Amino acid sequence: MDKRISLTLKHRPTGAPSAADFEAVEQPMPMPGPGEVLTRTLFLSIDPYMRGRLSDRASYAKPVQIGEVMTGESVGEVLASNAPDFVPGDAVVGSRGWQTHSVTPAAALVKLDRGAAPLSTYLGVLGMPGTTAYSGLTDIGHVRAGETVVISAATGAVGSVAGQLAKRAGARVIGVAGGAEKCLWAQEALGYDDCIDHRGMDIDVALKATCPDGIDVYFENVGGAVQAAVWPLLNPHARMIMCGMVAEYNHQRPAPGPNLMAVVRQRLRIEGLIVSDKPERFAEWRALAAPWVADGSLRYRETIIDGLENAPDALAQVLAGGNFGKMLVRL
Amino acid sequence: MDKRISLTLKHRPTGAPSAADFEAVEQPMPMPGPGEVLTRTLFLSIDPYMRGRLSDRASYAKPVQIGEVMTGESVGEVLASNAPDFVPGDAVVGSRGWQTHSVTPAAALVKLDRGAAPLSTYLGVLGMPGTTAYSGLTDIGHVRAGETVVISAATGAVGSVAGQLAKRAGARVIGVAGGAEKCLWAQEALGYDDCIDHRGMDIDVALKATCPDGIDVYFENVGGAVQAAVWPLLNPHARMIMCGMVAEYNHQRPAPGPNLMAVVRQRLRIEGLIVSDKPERFAEWRALAAPWVADGSLRYRETIIDGLENAPDALAQVLAGGNFGKMLVRL
Repeated sequence: MDKRISLTLKHRPTGAPSAADFEAVEQPMPMPGPGEVLTRTLFLSIDPYMRGRLSDRASYAKPVQIGEVMTGESVGEVLASNAPDFVPGDAVVGSRGWQTHSVTPAAALVKLDRGAAPLSTYLGVLGMPGTTAYSGLTDIGHVRAGETVVISAATGAVGSVAGQLAKRAGARVIGVAGGAEKCLWAQEALGYDDCIDHRGMDIDVALKATCPDGIDVYFENVGGAVQAAVWPLLNPHARMIMCGMVAEYNHQRPAPGPNLMAVVRQRLRIEGLIVSDKPERFAEWRALAAPWVADGSLRYRETIIDGLENAPDALAQVLAGGNFGKMLVRL
Repeated sequence: MDKRISLTLKHRPTGAPSAADFEAVEQPMPMPGPGEVLTRTLFLSIDPYMRGRLSDRASYAKPVQIGEVMTGESVGEVLASNAPDFVPGDAVVGSRGWQTHSVTPAAALVKLDRGAAPLSTYLGVLGMPGTTAYSGLTDIGHVRAGETVVISAATGAVGSVAGQLAKRAGARVIGVAGGAEKCLWAQEALGYDDCIDHRGMDIDVALKATCPDGIDVYFENVGGAVQAAVWPLLNPHARMIMCGMVAEYNHQRPAPGPNLMAVVRQRLRIEGLIVSDKPERFAEWRALAAPWVADGSLRYRETIIDGLENAPDALAQVLAGGNFGKMLVRL
C-alpha cells in the first residue's frame, strides 16, 4: 500500500458521535525525517475521554480541530526508521491518531516486547487504562484491607483492573456494571465480591443493601445515577477517585451535582485523575503487570472491531456501554 | 452565686435558631468529683458548626438531644479543683457547653497562660477557628508563593487567620466578605490583596475580574453563590479546603452542587476538614501563633455580646454573617 488513510474531524458531534462526523482522507505514504519512525497501525485504542476531544468546551487537553486527524493511542509495527533505536518489524505503542500509518518522533514511541504479552494489551490492561487504575488506587485511593471499595464501569478497561487491584489490597470490592453478563464475569473472573447491574436493579436500593457498612473508596468512571447512589453511602474519610463520568459525556450541559456539605461532614477527599500527569506510572505498571497478564492472574477482556472506518461507531459504543472490556479497532 | 444556669435545647429550630428554641435551667451548683474541676464561664465561643448540632440530620458529631445542655467551647476560671494540675484562679479552655458553671474532667481542659494573650483569643484566633485555618492550609492547601488563594467569610474567625497565613506563604490572597466595612478591614488590617463584597457586587463578575489567572486554592466557609462563582475559575490541580458552608446551614434541604466532571478535567482535590480530627494541631498552633498575637503581627477582631441568655441570638447572627470577626458571649 502506498497510501495513508486518516480519519479527520468533519464537524463536532451533537450528542453521540457517528461516522458522519469524520472524513476519511487519503494521502501519499509519508516518509520519516531524521529521528522519526514510520509505522503501520495494528490496533487503535478507543477510550471514553475521546468524547471530550470532539467538543470545543475547555478541557485539560486541546480539542481536536475541524480537519485535524482524530487523536488516540495505537499499537503499530515499524516499517521504516530514521532513528537508531527502532528497526523495521519492531512493535511500538504511542499516540499516533486514527490513521493507517503514522510518522512519529522516536521519542514519542515505546518499544514493546512481542513475547511478554499480546500487543493489544498495551492499549488496555497494560496501557493507559490499566495505568489509570493503578495510579488511581496508588496515588488517591490508599485502599486498606477490609475497606469497602465500589467501582463503576466495573468490567471496563479501567474498572476491571481497579477491581482486581482493590481485591489484591484485601478490600471488599463491589462493582457496578450494565447487564447481567458483565456482572457475572466481574464476580467469576475478576473476583468482585458482588456486582450490581444498574440496568436491571434500582441502583440506590441495591447499592445500599450491598454496602451495609458504607463505602470507603469509590472509583468513579460513570457519574450520573451511580454517582448519586454512591454519594450518601460514603463513610467518614472516604476517598473518591475521579477518573471519568462517561454516562454524561454526550450531554450538552452538565447536570447539577451533589451538595458539597457532605465533603465537610464526612471529611471526604475527592480527587481528579488524568494519568498523563504521572508519566512515571506507565513503565512502572507495565513492568509490574506484564507478568500477571502472562501468568493469567490479571484478567481482562477485549471488544475488537475491524476496520478504521468503524472507529467512530466503536467510540459511540464505548460511550453507551456497548463494549465488554477494552474497546479496540483492528486494522 | 450558688446556682448554675444552663441553656438546654427545647426543640429543634426550623431555619434560623432563636432564644425560643432553648430553655434556661437553674440547678444547684455542682461539686467536682475525683479528678474533676469546677469552673465558672468567662466567654462562650459561638461558631457556625453549632447549627449542625441542633439538627437531627446525620452529621460527624452526635446532635444535641432535646433537654440536653447546648454544647460548645468556652474559656473559664477554676473555682474548685479535685485534680492536681489545677488550682482556683487558673484560666482554662475546653468544651463545657452553654452554662454559667461546669464540672469537667481535668483531662478535658487546657490550662492557659494568662499573660501570653487575652483569654478570649483562645476561643478564636488561638483556638478552634485559628487552628482550623492553620490545619486547612497546612494539611490540605499546600499554598505556594505566587498562587491565587480565595477565602470566603474572609474576616470571620477562620477566614481572617487563613488569609493572613496565605499571605505569609507568599500567595496573592482574595477575600470574599459581606459588606464594605469588612472588605476594608480585610485589606487594611489583614493584608488581603483584594476583597469582594458579595452583598454589593455581582460575585461572578467581580471574582472573575479579580482572579484573571484563575484560583489555585479556595478556602470554603460559606457555600452558596460564592462557591458557585469560584467553581468555574478553579485552575488545574486546585485545592478546595472544605471547612464549612454557613450560607446553607439554615436550609431545610441541601441545594444541588456543582457537576463533578470539573474535578476530573482540572484534577481538583476537594477535601473536608474537621479540626478535631487533628488534635495535635491545637497545641502546635497555640505555640506558633501566641507570640504573633502578642506582637500584633497576627490580627483579629471580636464581636462580644453580654449574657448567657443572648447565646442563641449570637448564633443566629453568626449564621447570617452579622458578626465581625470571632463571635463571643461574655458572662
